[in-house]
Amino acid sequence: VSSGTTGTTVTAGLDIGGTKILGVAVDPADPETIVGEARVPTPDGEEQLLDAMAEVVVKLGSPAAVGVGIAGLVSRGGVLQVSPNIPGLRGVDVVAEMHRRVGLPIRVDNDATCAAWGEHLAGAARGADDVVCVTLGTGIGAGIIADGELVRGAHGFGGEAGHMVVDPSGPPCPCGRSGCWERFASGSGLARLARDAAAAGRLERARLLAGGEATAVRSEHVSSAAAEGDAQALAVMDAFARWVALGVGNLVTLLDCSLVVIGGGLVALGDLLLDRVCTAFRTDVMSPEERLDVRIVPAQLGDRAGAIGAAMLGSRELSP
Amino acid sequence: VSSGTTGTTVTAGLDIGGTKILGVAVDPADPETIVGEARVPTPDGEEQLLDAMAEVVVKLGSPAAVGVGIAGLVSRGGVLQVSPNIPGLRGVDVVAEMHRRVGLPIRVDNDATCAAWGEHLAGAARGADDVVCVTLGTGIGAGIIADGELVRGAHGFGGEAGHMVVDPSGPPCPCGRSGCWERFASGSGLARLARDAAAAGRLERARLLAGGEATAVRSEHVSSAAAEGDAQALAVMDAFARWVALGVGNLVTLLDCSLVVIGGGLVALGDLLLDRVCTAFRTDVMSPEERLDVRIVPAQLGDRAGAIGAAMLGSRELSP
Repeated sequence: VSSGTTGTTVTAGLDIGGTKILGVAVDPADPETIVGEARVPTPDGEEQLLDAMAEVVVKLGSPAAVGVGIAGLVSRGGVLQVSPNIPGLRGVDVVAEMHRRVGLPIRVDNDATCAAWGEHLAGAARGADDVVCVTLGTGIGAGIIADGELVRGAHGFGGEAGHMVVDPSGPPCPCGRSGCWERFASGSGLARLARDAAAAGRLERARLLAGGEATAVRSEHVSSAAAEGDAQALAVMDAFARWVALGVGNLVTLLDCSLVVIGGGLVALGDLLLDRVCTAFRTDVMSPEERLDVRIVPAQLGDRAGAIGAAMLGSRELSP
Repeated sequence: VSSGTTGTTVTAGLDIGGTKILGVAVDPADPETIVGEARVPTPDGEEQLLDAMAEVVVKLGSPAAVGVGIAGLVSRGGVLQVSPNIPGLRGVDVVAEMHRRVGLPIRVDNDATCAAWGEHLAGAARGADDVVCVTLGTGIGAGIIADGELVRGAHGFGGEAGHMVVDPSGPPCPCGRSGCWERFASGSGLARLARDAAAAGRLERARLLAGGEATAVRSEHVSSAAAEGDAQALAVMDAFARWVALGVGNLVTLLDCSLVVIGGGLVALGDLLLDRVCTAFRTDVMSPEERLDVRIVPAQLGDRAGAIGAAMLGSRELSP
């Protein structure tokens, strides 16, 4: 844990995860340099969580403003309307509660929105004005940048790409509908493809790596077997990459992005996933011959993207 | 045919359809008032078409700038890269060719993009900053407005909502993929639903209205039978409205629009379609309880929306 430097304006960015709160301090004039960082476990309970968030801000020195990224639907005013991971903050006016605790200008946004903004200002999307940043984890989050600006939407809920329906006869989603993109193209989607293949008697190598039981096969066993060149595991990776590319193709078709940044835990699959997504994308976007310049690249900021983007969004709350 | 008034700046907007060119003259300060209008048939052949477009501009008096809307993928520079309806203009630099003919500042955009901008400035989307305008015709076009500005995308191709894949096992699309939204939710989609139902022995009343043959049943026979209260025709309308709502739900989930404007030929179905879409939307969008204020409304400008929007986009080419 270090603190911000003196003499320059520093803003704090917090990314509130299900297990930890990650905070960074950034000079808004130089978002590529992190001048302070702090991590604390995410406590249960509204008061404890808000207090822990305030504690992280204090650990980051004397920031001039604070940005916060949280999974879920965050209103433009900073109320967490829907929260799948942090039930303790559901319905909480996070801006008001944090302002009461730290007395600084506060901004709260969706975590994937923050991550997209971080990658845009300091990571893989620098210099690109029409971008979608997709976070492939247990679910799918996304942030959209159009003509250099975030698409926040009427309420602040913009970017929920994981809940585009891509197959109405697909598996049910906790959101209440069926066949949402994140049922297919997230870590959960890969795990389901792997379980189905193992249950059908395929994926022998992955089953061996998992200890022998088909029900124990997880995405990491599939990716390990695929990395060894196992044909059955590679076939599962092909099928998974097609689902990722289908949604990416939809987003590029709709938004005409020149760049798609893929972040989140599944980026650890590396070229095994990304090369396949790039190949499938060429048949999964409208008029691919007019989009030869469109690139699909891995995120660069890792798990700090959301906190960096939050810090930069927080800096917008400073008076000019 | 009338011409622009003197003393005020007027810009011309042209909507290039497969059968006619519609031109309007608009005072950019008052886009709700059309001060001139002209229509000519769309000729075949590149030179003839460009000459006819120039003729419409002359008929509109002395505009200061010209905007043009054309179906297809129009580059930001005004080249019609992909053109499903106007093959004569495919690959043509429409800005350069029109500038050579009329000597005025020119802007060219996709027709659905122009229509969205027209509805935003002078029609159903006035006052709403986060809007998607969907044109349901033979295919589906759309224009996206985020925070009050058009989402044009990196190349100028933004808004191709009709080619979001909503069911990868669906019917093949002329675009090369399968299961695009416009396969289900356009006039062609309704006709396919109607043919399938008639072939399966349903839609007796619509078949009677069509002269008796199942293969002769078209969307207008279904809508006529549905308007009479025929249960089988109403069931087809229900199924069709669900497909419309599925894509609208995807767009609102992704972009967090507060308003969806439905235009195009299928708006003639009126409440028979729109009421059903509004009902289905409530289960086809993520977190509907957070979006009770989202409205789905019919377009107001009819077939003039594209020309009005084009005229207003053309006015952006004027020096300030």
